[in-house]
Amino acid sequence: MSSGSAATGPHVLRRINAAAVLNALRDADGHTATVSDLVVATGLSRPAVTRALTALAEAGIAEFSGPTEHQIGRPAQRARFRAELGHVAGIDVGPHKVLVMIADLAGNVLAEREAVSPTGPDMVPMLRSTLTAVSVEAGVTPTDLWSVAVGTPGIVDHERGEVVLAPSIPGWSSLPVIAELRDWLGCPVGIENDVNLAVVAERWRGEAGDNLLFVQWGERIGTGMVIDDKPYRGASSAAGELGFIDLVTDLDDEPKPATDGLGAFERLVGAGEILRLGVQRCDSPLRDLLAEGTDIAPLFTAAEAGDPAAASVVDTIATRFARGLAVQLLIMDPQRVVVGGGVSRAGEVLFDAVRKRLGRMLLVPVDLRVSALGARNVALGAVRMALDHVEQRLTALLS
Amino acid sequence: MSSGSAATGPHVLRRINAAAVLNALRDADGHTATVSDLVVATGLSRPAVTRALTALAEAGIAEFSGPTEHQIGRPAQRARFRAELGHVAGIDVGPHKVLVMIADLAGNVLAEREAVSPTGPDMVPMLRSTLTAVSVEAGVTPTDLWSVAVGTPGIVDHERGEVVLAPSIPGWSSLPVIAELRDWLGCPVGIENDVNLAVVAERWRGEAGDNLLFVQWGERIGTGMVIDDKPYRGASSAAGELGFIDLVTDLDDEPKPATDGLGAFERLVGAGEILRLGVQRCDSPLRDLLAEGTDIAPLFTAAEAGDPAAASVVDTIATRFARGLAVQLLIMDPQRVVVGGGVSRAGEVLFDAVRKRLGRMLLVPVDLRVSALGARNVALGAVRMALDHVEQRLTALLS
Repeated sequence: MSSGSAATGPHVLRRINAAAVLNALRDADGHTATVSDLVVATGLSRPAVTRALTALAEAGIAEFSGPTEHQIGRPAQRARFRAELGHVAGIDVGPHKVLVMIADLAGNVLAEREAVSPTGPDMVPMLRSTLTAVSVEAGVTPTDLWSVAVGTPGIVDHERGEVVLAPSIPGWSSLPVIAELRDWLGCPVGIENDVNLAVVAERWRGEAGDNLLFVQWGERIGTGMVIDDKPYRGASSAAGELGFIDLVTDLDDEPKPATDGLGAFERLVGAGEILRLGVQRCDSPLRDLLAEGTDIAPLFTAAEAGDPAAASVVDTIATRFARGLAVQLLIMDPQRVVVGGGVSRAGEVLFDAVRKRLGRMLLVPVDLRVSALGARNVALGAVRMALDHVEQRLTALLS
Repeated sequence: MSSGSAATGPHVLRRINAAAVLNALRDADGHTATVSDLVVATGLSRPAVTRALTALAEAGIAEFSGPTEHQIGRPAQRARFRAELGHVAGIDVGPHKVLVMIADLAGNVLAEREAVSPTGPDMVPMLRSTLTAVSVEAGVTPTDLWSVAVGTPGIVDHERGEVVLAPSIPGWSSLPVIAELRDWLGCPVGIENDVNLAVVAERWRGEAGDNLLFVQWGERIGTGMVIDDKPYRGASSAAGELGFIDLVTDLDDEPKPATDGLGAFERLVGAGEILRLGVQRCDSPLRDLLAEGTDIAPLFTAAEAGDPAAASVVDTIATRFARGLAVQLLIMDPQRVVVGGGVSRAGEVLFDAVRKRLGRMLLVPVDLRVSALGARNVALGAVRMALDHVEQRLTALLS
């Protein structure tokens, strides 16, 4: 009971107010605002805003700028969030590539860099060198980072901060990556499922909605759900595994265990299968481009330009994807679907075809959109997760 | 703001306390309890409990019994919830049968009756005659009912209290059944999706859990989800439609529209398909029993006794059901699965086979149970829904 009373005392109220003012200041244009702006943005009283700003300035998180005593007409003093005070990193570890971003405390991405994923034990040295390179580009040293978050495919144990299962990156789930990064950087390093981070990014910088299904479509396929404005992860943090549903095996047979680490639906419509179908059906030079195995974009460009072979691949993939997505929509009935990940860059030639097929498979219509964040969403979500840690500590400073 | 202030005044607190005491009294053994019992059950103070009981007694909802002034040792006075004060009805309208229950205010079912579902315009007269017959059996007249709730397949518009879509009962969704029942009975008549009511019943009388997937398996297949201890219905009240997922149509083909009102998965493993496979594979006399088309139980009894043809049907159905259920489990990751409805009476011969197959299709194990409520769960859930309406009005009386 005594800790309960302490938790509702005036210190806590001041901390909550300071957090609200901090958020409003950070989200303001140029991270600067007047007291009046902040009164409007937070709904707090003028004295409460002033008290919060003073505490933020004393802690070095905000600074005052604007009118000197010599100015005429005394324009209102402006407060500025010192976004440059610290930096965070967001890292997307995927089966094929790693994307590292450095952002300031307002979430402005200052530098980012993509690298090819190594296998097994080479992951830690590679993450160290990429993080160092991109930090230098952003004008900081890695050990000055305030907080880092890592997105990964598979199932994450949030208690222990470890990857429990990630069949798409061989060896990854047994590596003590998080502990090693923590030791090296000397700052908190969080880890989260990549699709959950994509949802975080979508709600931060992209499409919102209090009942949202987000589908990450690349080599892998995973989904993240927002229910009642909260991320839904399931009882074992294993919800949303659309990539593993089996629409292919003859119904009265037992499905065969996977040997490639991919789920059954991923094998059907993932980026790898799109390339494979392209190589199989298209003629050179498109065929040669696709055979390089790195970029699906030329296929969709050709389909849009009327290439019949490319269009047939789009048709096949749209039909298959709609079939799987329809299953999840029949079960979840979300308000909106947002598709992100590498394949989302295919554009409307693919998604118009998906929408057309979906309509005939559902009991109620659905609003399907393509994410504006593309393949950067996981790293952006990791930045947001790292910032959440920082903001908790910043406002704790003010107690 | 003024209504907000009123809503937190002492009247509201007294009403909340009275509701808590009422619930505790209703749930007590024989619906009777002492003040001390109620202090323990509610966590309220002795004066608050006494005040609530007095208000309940003044409204006629509770009565005091027990010691007269002549008794020695003054045993504690007992209060009793007057469950006989009023009655409610719960109705399960299915494609093949209608089940009507009459219960007292404590939810004790006093009488119940099953009738064969008519089609289209005959539904209202049939509901009237069944409701009248079962009311008489319970010792009440239908127009004395305090509240009625109806469970139906399909999608319900909660705002308007209408069935929007119920392909399994031809003509049903266009009938003004609820309005006609309301006019006749002169009491509130609610309507809700049958599977949602089955979940309500499961949480009231059966299996609990704050993250639960309930599967209603009969002729039709629907699911209800409980997330964070609340029913999840989706953005358009259309979530949980496992019965409509398509695991059969060849992937690159367009699924054909249904002509029998059944969903693709219902056509694969519903009670009708179980009977059809039984007739196809089994020999007489079992075959003749199944050909009557009313009861699947003999098939499972024969399978348990070692009949190889019956066992092969169980095997086929278990494999197909596991395939569909695995899809929903991969997406939802619930803590527990409870299967109810007519097919749930098949027993462990079927569900052991389902569990065995599921294990190999999932990323995390799941706890699968058979409902103890069987095919009565929808009507029981309707009783609970009708009681909820009554209890809201009862405690409103005490303001």
